[in-house]
Amino acid sequence: MRLSKTLLPTLKEDPVEAQIVSHKLMLRSGMIRQLGAGIYNWLPLGLRVLRKVENIVRQQMDKAGAQEVFMPAVQPAELWQETGRWDQYGVELLRFQDRGGRDFCFGPTHEEVVTDLVRNELRSYKQLPANFYQIQTKFRDEVRPRFGIMRGREFLMKDAYSFDLDQQSLDNSYEVMFQAYKEIFKSCGLSFRAVEADSGAIGGSASHEFHVLAESGEDAIASCDSCDYAANLEKAVAGLQDGTDTPPTAEMQKVATPEAKTIDEVSEFFAVTPDKTCKSLLVESDEGPCMLLLRGDHELNEIKAGNLLAGNNFRLLEPHEVKKLTGVGVGSLGPVASKLKIIADNSLANMSDFICGANEDGYHLTGVNWERDLPSPQFADLRNVQEGDSCSRCDAGSLRLDRGIEVGHVFKLGDKYTKSMNMTVLNQDGREQTPLMGCYGIGVSRIVAAAIEQNHDDNGIVWPIFLAPFHVEILLINPKEAPAAEFAEKLYQQLLDSGLEVLLDDRHERLGVKFKDADLIGAPIRVVIGGRGIKEGAVEVQSRKGGSSQKVALNEVGETLINRAKDLLSGS
Amino acid sequence: MRLSKTLLPTLKEDPVEAQIVSHKLMLRSGMIRQLGAGIYNWLPLGLRVLRKVENIVRQQMDKAGAQEVFMPAVQPAELWQETGRWDQYGVELLRFQDRGGRDFCFGPTHEEVVTDLVRNELRSYKQLPANFYQIQTKFRDEVRPRFGIMRGREFLMKDAYSFDLDQQSLDNSYEVMFQAYKEIFKSCGLSFRAVEADSGAIGGSASHEFHVLAESGEDAIASCDSCDYAANLEKAVAGLQDGTDTPPTAEMQKVATPEAKTIDEVSEFFAVTPDKTCKSLLVESDEGPCMLLLRGDHELNEIKAGNLLAGNNFRLLEPHEVKKLTGVGVGSLGPVASKLKIIADNSLANMSDFICGANEDGYHLTGVNWERDLPSPQFADLRNVQEGDSCSRCDAGSLRLDRGIEVGHVFKLGDKYTKSMNMTVLNQDGREQTPLMGCYGIGVSRIVAAAIEQNHDDNGIVWPIFLAPFHVEILLINPKEAPAAEFAEKLYQQLLDSGLEVLLDDRHERLGVKFKDADLIGAPIRVVIGGRGIKEGAVEVQSRKGGSSQKVALNEVGETLINRAKDLLSGS
Repeated sequence: MRLSKTLLPTLKEDPVEAQIVSHKLMLRSGMIRQLGAGIYNWLPLGLRVLRKVENIVRQQMDKAGAQEVFMPAVQPAELWQETGRWDQYGVELLRFQDRGGRDFCFGPTHEEVVTDLVRNELRSYKQLPANFYQIQTKFRDEVRPRFGIMRGREFLMKDAYSFDLDQQSLDNSYEVMFQAYKEIFKSCGLSFRAVEADSGAIGGSASHEFHVLAESGEDAIASCDSCDYAANLEKAVAGLQDGTDTPPTAEMQKVATPEAKTIDEVSEFFAVTPDKTCKSLLVESDEGPCMLLLRGDHELNEIKAGNLLAGNNFRLLEPHEVKKLTGVGVGSLGPVASKLKIIADNSLANMSDFICGANEDGYHLTGVNWERDLPSPQFADLRNVQEGDSCSRCDAGSLRLDRGIEVGHVFKLGDKYTKSMNMTVLNQDGREQTPLMGCYGIGVSRIVAAAIEQNHDDNGIVWPIFLAPFHVEILLINPKEAPAAEFAEKLYQQLLDSGLEVLLDDRHERLGVKFKDADLIGAPIRVVIGGRGIKEGAVEVQSRKGGSSQKVALNEVGETLINRAKDLLSGS
Repeated sequence: MRLSKTLLPTLKEDPVEAQIVSHKLMLRSGMIRQLGAGIYNWLPLGLRVLRKVENIVRQQMDKAGAQEVFMPAVQPAELWQETGRWDQYGVELLRFQDRGGRDFCFGPTHEEVVTDLVRNELRSYKQLPANFYQIQTKFRDEVRPRFGIMRGREFLMKDAYSFDLDQQSLDNSYEVMFQAYKEIFKSCGLSFRAVEADSGAIGGSASHEFHVLAESGEDAIASCDSCDYAANLEKAVAGLQDGTDTPPTAEMQKVATPEAKTIDEVSEFFAVTPDKTCKSLLVESDEGPCMLLLRGDHELNEIKAGNLLAGNNFRLLEPHEVKKLTGVGVGSLGPVASKLKIIADNSLANMSDFICGANEDGYHLTGVNWERDLPSPQFADLRNVQEGDSCSRCDAGSLRLDRGIEVGHVFKLGDKYTKSMNMTVLNQDGREQTPLMGCYGIGVSRIVAAAIEQNHDDNGIVWPIFLAPFHVEILLINPKEAPAAEFAEKLYQQLLDSGLEVLLDDRHERLGVKFKDADLIGAPIRVVIGGRGIKEGAVEVQSRKGGSSQKVALNEVGETLINRAKDLLSGS
């Protein structure tokens, strides 16, 4: 592609509307332009990357035996009414009426449409398992679209839906997709992690998220440094500390702590680390108010607590509600002599001599011990894991925390949709049976942004070769220097003929602008061609990543570039 | 692709909802399934063909120097308000509001969006000419969606938009697209015609349509059998008959014709052919009522008449309006002694002794002649051309009429959008100048249907190789016969490895079903593999088109199939 003939409008400054690196760099390198809130035009450079992701996804889905289909964006309300989601989905579902006044929506996902399709076409267990996917434009009317295409409203998604006769077959289909997803992110050249996820809201029995690792990621994910356990923070479980009870060594004492309310203040007051304290939280659940105990340095995981209390109404009580219910402020709440139901996090089980609120404003208790001072409560996993926690799957490992950007999500849906939409097939006994579904999503456009979050430096994007819009950029210093221009032109043809994707910067622009743009655009390999180099018989071949540079003799340039690109493409 | 593992639900009978061949065959061969009125799911077989068309279009657009972009489906109303089309477009524009109550539409076309994009990014004449295209899902809320994807509501379209500094440059950009379109339809293997079209409604100075020729086509298109003149019926002009006046030979006579009102009845009454008669039509226009005269065997072309009378209010008067205005019924209307403005079709200029209504109910005039009986009126082109008319471009040719399906349309738009949206660039003199636009559309999904209308027989689709979902089908008679199954499997791999696209019918189905499905699906080449053939050492290679069949020795089958496919793909 010749830059002089391409709409590739680079920007010198970070646009004010962009907060995260990928948004800034996609605007600055001319990959996208905003049309409206959360709605973007893909310009030629961006589209090249988007298509690369799309093709990688397609290739791996095909390889995994999924069948590509293409379902409509505009979906009739009737199907969503069958599953009840027309009412449940909320305002994120973009609804409208056609000229005849019939209700439709712009599909944010396609469970209803695909289930409708297969219930009309699949009749027998012999036609299962089957897995259908598409790569298609979706719309979700996000309350606050932001971060460019990272959290846009209109976006490109790969969604797949598997249909199996029984759980074992679903487990297998799920595993096939799980492996295909790993291949996809590997083939993109991205550093990623597959983590267990909570499947709460959407139901079903299992769920994994795929995260591209990046410091700027919105999500925290935990992984073991020894085994392959990994989970998102909502779901991650730390190993239990060894079971040895530590016997009491101190008497329980009530101490006036007029100024100490928070864990930090209490720890400072008593000159202990927070892990010697216990914090007490009051929550509302279906079964009424309940006291949750956590070690002072731990954070409540509301998903876990909500799941445990099966609580649709689960929430933390407000301070004034706590006061009303217990007669004390949140800063002095504690479990000793409390009449509330108490659940303590597992990590408290072998604590001794700990400090907690005294249930009397301005007082705390020290030297508190289970059984001696209060009965052992129910213990459960209530907290977020922390860096360094032991692994719950293996003996040796400890957990590390990383930041990630969710780019894929796989679910075992079970019969949620097939049942509500009356999809059955005849089983081996000739009886109607409701198949089980899995669904498997990848944010195709989001991968582009996530890749940039993971691969950039201060000067621009540093594309992994598999997603790079161009393998090689030929930076022609001055198109008016005939010998250099001719050499660049010949090289351009040679590289194209060898199958490489090449950007030729043939613009009449200042050298500084050209170098800055090349850094922004981020082709992995760059060759700089100018009159002096031609005269001297060697030109500079540069590597975007690391910035290394090498003089290469003119007659070897083509081959050098081709070999270097092939090395990168072969992963070496 | 293995048929046993593919959703390819063929139907034995024509579905009742389908009226035209392509709709029937797309449903019967399992290419598509309807989701709602004018909204279709593309199943694996259909999608393969759709992607082929898409790739051919993309390849030729890239080759022609157009830049691919990807614009949003959801478009803000503000842009449409700028050009006035928010109000003009009517109910075909699918409108809705987002959660914030802002107006949007599902883009049926992208003139506004692309003009908004380039007005923000292009600043200088140096950046022109530029041409941007996309392949994208559109929605048009047709009043009566029908004929399957031929006239659906949601469809896949390639739309391109060129921007040029002046008319000469636009003419060039238009010509480049015109040639690219010819390449596209050639590369699809379709028989097509590029015809001049009326550019009335959308404005601009020139317009061509591209039609795939098919007897079932909705449009009539005229073309010269000698030169390359071709136009759609709205626009086609016949050559003038030679100018020799024929002198009168008869007296004008008033004859009672109580039962003869239509041209056919009048011709029969007087025992003449209809071309000896003249029919008189009354129309309403901006300038008031006007009488149009046509030869009895000719049809009024309302587009031409409307353009001539510059008539926004152009319409044929109803019989009761004619009666009220002239005092006679439509069957006896005539030009002699009429006080109305009269325009006659060119073909009447050298008629003599003709028959027309007498302006008195139940009477006609015979032997009517210009000048002697009534003054010569204004002559103009008012009629549809007919098969056999002389060509208006060359001396030698005569016109033939064909039926066509419109699959592409190119327009010179001029400054309609750039002006209303205030797009300017700096010209060579440093002054703001409004660029001129062209727009170029191709109905990507419609090409699939049009190809079937052109290429089918009683048994199913007969794909041109370039659009075929598979080059070769391997029809395995009985997968339980191990030697045959093994041979089929090896052949399947060999063909795939050679780069061919292959369907392996490995289903446990009756032979008749397999043959019927193979005909429906329409792969150009078919090989039938069964136990007997394996024993005998030769299997049958069949051609879908023409149905020819040939025994090929087992050790030569692979090579034969590969060569035959390559011959077809190379156009020989």
